[in-house]
Amino acid sequence: MNPKSTKKEILLIALGGNALIGKGQAGSIEEQLGNLSVPLAQAARLSKRYRIIITHGNGPQVGNLLLQQECCSGVPRLPLEILVAQTQGQIGYMIESTLDNELMEMEGEHEQLIVTVLTYVLVDANDPAFACPTKPIGPAFDEETASRLPYPVVRTPRGFRRVVASPSPITIIEKREIKRLIDLGFIVIACGGGGIPVIRHGRAFQGVDAVIDKDLASAKLAEEVGVDALIIATDVEAVAMGYGTGDERFLRSLSADEARDHLQKGVFPPGSMGPKIEAALQFVTSSGKRAVICSIDAIEDAVEGKAGTEVA
Amino acid sequence: MNPKSTKKEILLIALGGNALIGKGQAGSIEEQLGNLSVPLAQAARLSKRYRIIITHGNGPQVGNLLLQQECCSGVPRLPLEILVAQTQGQIGYMIESTLDNELMEMEGEHEQLIVTVLTYVLVDANDPAFACPTKPIGPAFDEETASRLPYPVVRTPRGFRRVVASPSPITIIEKREIKRLIDLGFIVIACGGGGIPVIRHGRAFQGVDAVIDKDLASAKLAEEVGVDALIIATDVEAVAMGYGTGDERFLRSLSADEARDHLQKGVFPPGSMGPKIEAALQFVTSSGKRAVICSIDAIEDAVEGKAGTEVA
Repeated sequence: MNPKSTKKEILLIALGGNALIGKGQAGSIEEQLGNLSVPLAQAARLSKRYRIIITHGNGPQVGNLLLQQECCSGVPRLPLEILVAQTQGQIGYMIESTLDNELMEMEGEHEQLIVTVLTYVLVDANDPAFACPTKPIGPAFDEETASRLPYPVVRTPRGFRRVVASPSPITIIEKREIKRLIDLGFIVIACGGGGIPVIRHGRAFQGVDAVIDKDLASAKLAEEVGVDALIIATDVEAVAMGYGTGDERFLRSLSADEARDHLQKGVFPPGSMGPKIEAALQFVTSSGKRAVICSIDAIEDAVEGKAGTEVA
Repeated sequence: MNPKSTKKEILLIALGGNALIGKGQAGSIEEQLGNLSVPLAQAARLSKRYRIIITHGNGPQVGNLLLQQECCSGVPRLPLEILVAQTQGQIGYMIESTLDNELMEMEGEHEQLIVTVLTYVLVDANDPAFACPTKPIGPAFDEETASRLPYPVVRTPRGFRRVVASPSPITIIEKREIKRLIDLGFIVIACGGGGIPVIRHGRAFQGVDAVIDKDLASAKLAEEVGVDALIIATDVEAVAMGYGTGDERFLRSLSADEARDHLQKGVFPPGSMGPKIEAALQFVTSSGKRAVICSIDAIEDAVEGKAGTEVA
């Protein structure tokens, strides 16, 4: 806590996909709302001592919207950025209402203000990711169907899937709004699905077909808003060496140098733990503050330094 | 203008469906963004002299999501309130980004803060509307398909359509958030599609399958936030007597007593102009302030008392 300020410290909690849909679940709305109460009961308690920003993924939700578009020829096809906006509305509402319920459960009628900020994130039209899209999104198709799709596809174990670029976040367009809201004591939900990716087009912004990694977008937001701790909540209790080998060893801490070294050596898988460690490293390096990677049910312990892997 | 305050007056602009999809349009994203620039260029100019709240409908957009759900059996079906939340994200993003572009066009880099507030609206579980659903939503089906649908349907000229309750808005749950934001100078987009309808369920709120009229929800928000003028923008230039008879006469003003009298006599059609006049009447009666019904391209003139029908 900054001794010059009586303001509460700011936590940014980045919720992984398992906060919404658990292993083996189909993702009904009841399941998603039930799952959300695990992290959000903790966020409700933490909001008494901290100012809170919550970010979240949207993979399965945007995938379902894409699948529906493919099924249904009678409806105008919407670009990916609009679908991301739809999931920000959907998941923002689910988080807001669950958090509201948790606060009511805890203390009855409450004065806590909560707002979801639709967020767009600037990317560079010349980002090398656009030349080589690598991020599979949406449903899997057989080869013949895939050959008729109007966009690039990639072969995955589940079948052929659409592939989009995953460019780096340059800046969070709504950072001023979010900073102002958090200063006023709002709990802010933002950067859903990594944000709606936009490029500069003259004076205006223009949406692009891409997906920004939600942990990298969260780290950028944490840096730009001046967060005191970045908590990346996921489906494992901590960063592990030898993950999945039967000889895994969870790490309680990881120095920035070690993290950088492991990332360069490709120790962590690119699609899962890799971007989380990269996000933690970026935030710690740029801000000098804390970042912790922990499981979704140990957020409070992670804030207190009793769970997860701290990158510092 | 209140002489005791140097704060700018507050306008609530309620955008009708034609702000997004014009007559004869299919509703592609390009069409919707193009249409939005008509009211939002005006809102951008008005924001120099007024604080602004924007509300909007979502009929065709939520209809498309419902149609997609019917087409696509592979995706878990979401309840109506979640689809409304999705459209608040979608349309909120389209309004925010268009408004941002209009402000940039007008003055380059700008300091105006804009935020979309996902909004839920409390309704009464005992509202008589629930006993007798009257609002058709979503796609039209043939009789045989309709008979297999898991919810009540109604026969319309287009075919059989799902019908839901349209209960009265009791209070806007996010009114404190919206009031705070508007006081701080944010342009606020709120109450999309009339808001996400919720009922009290013990201490918590619970979403219900219903649709709230967006003009009635806008009037409630205008009253609760303390708006100075409610502008209901639609596809006709003003309220007309004898509309569609070939002998129509546009009204420049309508007293509250006349409005009440006409509504009681059923002079205005229930699905279109009726709720707009009812909304204007409710706001004027409860607040003593102005309400104007005007066309989407004459919002600025309506604010200055030069266009539309003023209910006072």
